Amino acid sequence: MAIKSFHPPQRILMGPGPSDVSPRVLGAMARPTLGHLDPVFVAMMDEMKELLKYAFQTKNELTMPVSAPGSAGMETCFVNLVEPGDKVIVCQNGVFGGRMKENVERCGGVAVMVQDEWGRAVDPQKVEDALKANPDTKVVAFVHAETSTGAQSDAKTLVALAHKYNCLAIVDAVTSLGGTPVKVDEWDIDAIYSGTQKCLSCTPGLSPVSFNARAQEKIKNRKTKVQSWFMDLNLVMGYWGAATKRAYHHTAPINALYGLHEALVMLQEEGLENSWARHQKNHLALRAGLEAMGLKFVVPEAERLPQLNAITIPDGVDDGAVRTALLNDYQLEIGAGLGVMAGKVWRFGLMGYASNPRNVLVCLGALDDVLGRAKAPIQRGVAVAAAQKVLAG
Amino acid sequence: MAIKSFHPPQRILMGPGPSDVSPRVLGAMARPTLGHLDPVFVAMMDEMKELLKYAFQTKNELTMPVSAPGSAGMETCFVNLVEPGDKVIVCQNGVFGGRMKENVERCGGVAVMVQDEWGRAVDPQKVEDALKANPDTKVVAFVHAETSTGAQSDAKTLVALAHKYNCLAIVDAVTSLGGTPVKVDEWDIDAIYSGTQKCLSCTPGLSPVSFNARAQEKIKNRKTKVQSWFMDLNLVMGYWGAATKRAYHHTAPINALYGLHEALVMLQEEGLENSWARHQKNHLALRAGLEAMGLKFVVPEAERLPQLNAITIPDGVDDGAVRTALLNDYQLEIGAGLGVMAGKVWRFGLMGYASNPRNVLVCLGALDDVLGRAKAPIQRGVAVAAAQKVLAG
Repeated sequence: MAIKSFHPPQRILMGPGPSDVSPRVLGAMARPTLGHLDPVFVAMMDEMKELLKYAFQTKNELTMPVSAPGSAGMETCFVNLVEPGDKVIVCQNGVFGGRMKENVERCGGVAVMVQDEWGRAVDPQKVEDALKANPDTKVVAFVHAETSTGAQSDAKTLVALAHKYNCLAIVDAVTSLGGTPVKVDEWDIDAIYSGTQKCLSCTPGLSPVSFNARAQEKIKNRKTKVQSWFMDLNLVMGYWGAATKRAYHHTAPINALYGLHEALVMLQEEGLENSWARHQKNHLALRAGLEAMGLKFVVPEAERLPQLNAITIPDGVDDGAVRTALLNDYQLEIGAGLGVMAGKVWRFGLMGYASNPRNVLVCLGALDDVLGRAKAPIQRGVAVAAAQKVLAG
Repeated sequence: MAIKSFHPPQRILMGPGPSDVSPRVLGAMARPTLGHLDPVFVAMMDEMKELLKYAFQTKNELTMPVSAPGSAGMETCFVNLVEPGDKVIVCQNGVFGGRMKENVERCGGVAVMVQDEWGRAVDPQKVEDALKANPDTKVVAFVHAETSTGAQSDAKTLVALAHKYNCLAIVDAVTSLGGTPVKVDEWDIDAIYSGTQKCLSCTPGLSPVSFNARAQEKIKNRKTKVQSWFMDLNLVMGYWGAATKRAYHHTAPINALYGLHEALVMLQEEGLENSWARHQKNHLALRAGLEAMGLKFVVPEAERLPQLNAITIPDGVDDGAVRTALLNDYQLEIGAGLGVMAGKVWRFGLMGYASNPRNVLVCLGALDDVLGRAKAPIQRGVAVAAAQKVLAG
């Protein structure tokens, strides 16, 4: 056995995440490790909370990163807010609604599924019907930005519906945060989780979450203990709460937090609105190029996420061969289809640091070449120019 | 709001962990992020498994890092191996046995506590008595290296006892792995978890685990679903299993894994036996210095961990003031007491990259100065020389 140091190639990450990480973030992660109770680190945690409040557009005191990936952020929301027997309406329009159902059931809750077609937004009417039919519902859960399809749902309307029927709303913002508006206080979201590896330009591994007073009240008044010790917010709050009385819970992932701090400083420097506008502009440029080639979007225009562009794979084209050629010849990663969409769609992410004109042009140029070689039924030699027109506009 | 980039000071980390991180590990973490399904990354995962098998001294196929800190590694063991109603003997001789009890109960299990004095090893006789008194016990759980006290228990004997009574053994090796012998196959450990931020010279945030065939059998034959989706090994195995059919479960913390890979490459280069010997030698040097000053160890010599040295705070000395002076004047972090030992002991870690002669000398010199200024009843000016004598020997 003689395994050597690992030196990864420099890819362009235009899949569903992780997306390109800023060199500033990578540099921050390499800074000297501090103890997790060091006063200098504790002060940084306070900055982190402020920066996350800005990203989430909230004043919620309970705003912090869970020390594990987005899936653990999702689970943190469910294990804390769902007690055995609680009925939860789960909206499913892609892979991640299905994962929510798993979470509800593993908490001993009863999941009432509201199904929408994959690639479409959640239909508020169906949610209201389900709420009327299930007046004992405690929680409504939905995915704001479905990473598996690129569909965006109307979070504001869905949260208002949940409240109209006295339910809490749990929102998955893994792919939306930083890339498209997420307004926790204005929309009155009770519990929300996100990931660092999408529109925040950071490495994967942490899950920013935020809980409002209503959610905290529910957690404090639980009849049963939270089934997870690691994710029990009653305990985690002791570490991420007031700096004057921080109690050891688990050892925080120090260097990963340096990375997220730097990513959030960058977001603050750019400004949220500018970040949203950048994601939108690069999306429009990519879209112009893809459509000029004759490729079709999966999601109707009004429901599309700018940061995740799912298109239908043209007939007769070998999904895996195209993605492998993009990876090997252009160091470009795009996303395969997930779940029922496996083999049928490609997902082009333009998230965070990866959402830039250079990536748009490289991607379209590479796709033109690789699809051309695959003899796909596309319009050759027009995509890059179409995108450049939008970028110049 | 104008929060700036965070630039931590360069500390020497001689507390209970995180410990000093090798610059090679920090450098690895700053390498370009790959997608979590990238073939190059998947090949690195296979190397990671091999490197972890070496560290754990096992051939267990189910050996991998959990994508969250050691507490989540602990919870992964309990949620997978304990079903509602299962009786679990939990040995407690410090803080972490108490956390195990929490885990058992939150899984619906029944914890039978075997208590030993804090600062002492687990007494096998008491464990056997408990096994005899509770013939329906399914699992025995204990901490190999108690980070809160510095006591080492006889893992081999305790595991053999568990098996004698047809129980599985869950072992906490958070602080032992890499610093003192941990022999998973030879000792026939069924389930074990560790952390990256102790004797592996890596940043915190991941938890290496390993499960043998007996443990896997139990997991596959569970009557109930694992209550955690994130930690369900039936699902996690799909991602960390055979490279040919890797299925997406959660997004792996790519760059943190680069760091662990590099740390494990370093461990392989040094050799486990050499690493254990290094920890022992530096421990003896630190011990010589501390004892020359007149400071007393908490743990009896035969039960001491080389990598975690707990000593009793001398009478009349202000715990917090001393630690603050060490931090501010020497950039040296040592550990406070935890639980019932808060305010009564200091914990000096010599773990992984931090276990080196330079740290031993700096620590003793700094302590000599700070305790002298605090007018502590110690012997001045002798500690460094006493340590140097051991280091030269």
